[in-house]
Amino acid sequence: MNVSRASITRISHYRRVIFKLKSLGFQRVFSDNLGDALGISSVQVRKDFSEFGLTGNKKGGYQINEIIVDLDRILGKDMLRKVVVVGCGRMGKTLMSYSGFSGEGIKVVAGFDADPANIDPEGRIPIMDVLEMPDYIRKEKIQIAILTVPEHAAPTALEQLKNMGIKGILNFAPVQADSNPNCEIRNINIALELENMFYFVNAPE
Amino acid sequence: MNVSRASITRISHYRRVIFKLKSLGFQRVFSDNLGDALGISSVQVRKDFSEFGLTGNKKGGYQINEIIVDLDRILGKDMLRKVVVVGCGRMGKTLMSYSGFSGEGIKVVAGFDADPANIDPEGRIPIMDVLEMPDYIRKEKIQIAILTVPEHAAPTALEQLKNMGIKGILNFAPVQADSNPNCEIRNINIALELENMFYFVNAPE
Repeated sequence: MNVSRASITRISHYRRVIFKLKSLGFQRVFSDNLGDALGISSVQVRKDFSEFGLTGNKKGGYQINEIIVDLDRILGKDMLRKVVVVGCGRMGKTLMSYSGFSGEGIKVVAGFDADPANIDPEGRIPIMDVLEMPDYIRKEKIQIAILTVPEHAAPTALEQLKNMGIKGILNFAPVQADSNPNCEIRNINIALELENMFYFVNAPE
Repeated sequence: MNVSRASITRISHYRRVIFKLKSLGFQRVFSDNLGDALGISSVQVRKDFSEFGLTGNKKGGYQINEIIVDLDRILGKDMLRKVVVVGCGRMGKTLMSYSGFSGEGIKVVAGFDADPANIDPEGRIPIMDVLEMPDYIRKEKIQIAILTVPEHAAPTALEQLKNMGIKGILNFAPVQADSNPNCEIRNINIALELENMFYFVNAPE
């Protein structure tokens, strides 16, 4: 199946909205509801759903309990969603304790750092020496890492993570890293985002 | 001038690379150098530069000192680059002390929070009551805010920031917010990024 990142992002948003509707006691949801919530057309919603083999009927809508199971399967939520944090400075520790993950079923299971001062194997989420990482990743079958090392350490860390078989990296280091067929990398460069925004705000009309 | 976000992002990357070359003592840079550093063609580099009116010649390359001034002007770096952080919980405080901003000439000048326990007007970067925000933003001519409030507080905060005349918001709250002609919003939803990545990693071929 060949799907775009945009359609997967919409699927995630649908799930978030549908989950809230469920908590409000809703039993069905209509493509019009979801279109309104996301600011898109109901045609797009039905197109996305049919692309992933999700069925409803125009009058009856989609059964919420069924659709959540389907969306979770599409998003891999029914699988283990363990991640590690590589680089446990301030940003790394903030993400280790980030409350927004649990609602998505994502769990930071360990942190790794090269600085002995940051290592804390007895912590609520253990922080281990980076040398222990290859073993841990293999044993715990970790697929995805969050990279929060300083800029100078990023190229080596990226290389090592790929060599360890990590399949996805959310990269907060200010280094542009490219995905390859074995490893999907998403770069979140906060300074760059702000910089671009200053441009847009001050751009001549 | 109508430019794409992608070309502005490349301009930011060019500047970062050129800045490093300058610190290595380089005086000139060639489109081939920049193409290699970004993994794109030199044709694209020259196209971007000419789109923004930057000139060099194929043999002589671009003068680094001149090009940095030009790129800074394009990126608005010669202007004041003050931002505020709205919501001073753990993520907000981490971004207030984020070391990656200073290299880009961005300065977090204040934080705002609704919780008296978080307020610290005497801090290195002051954290003030959110009620003081409208006055501060007007007086200090703040254009851009980083939003790090919890999900439940995000819709109101977004509305208030727009009403205060904020022109750009980097939104870390897990709420999808849309730009409008008066306010450019970039959503950084960390949990959603991870969620999408789990999908891609586990997607059937």
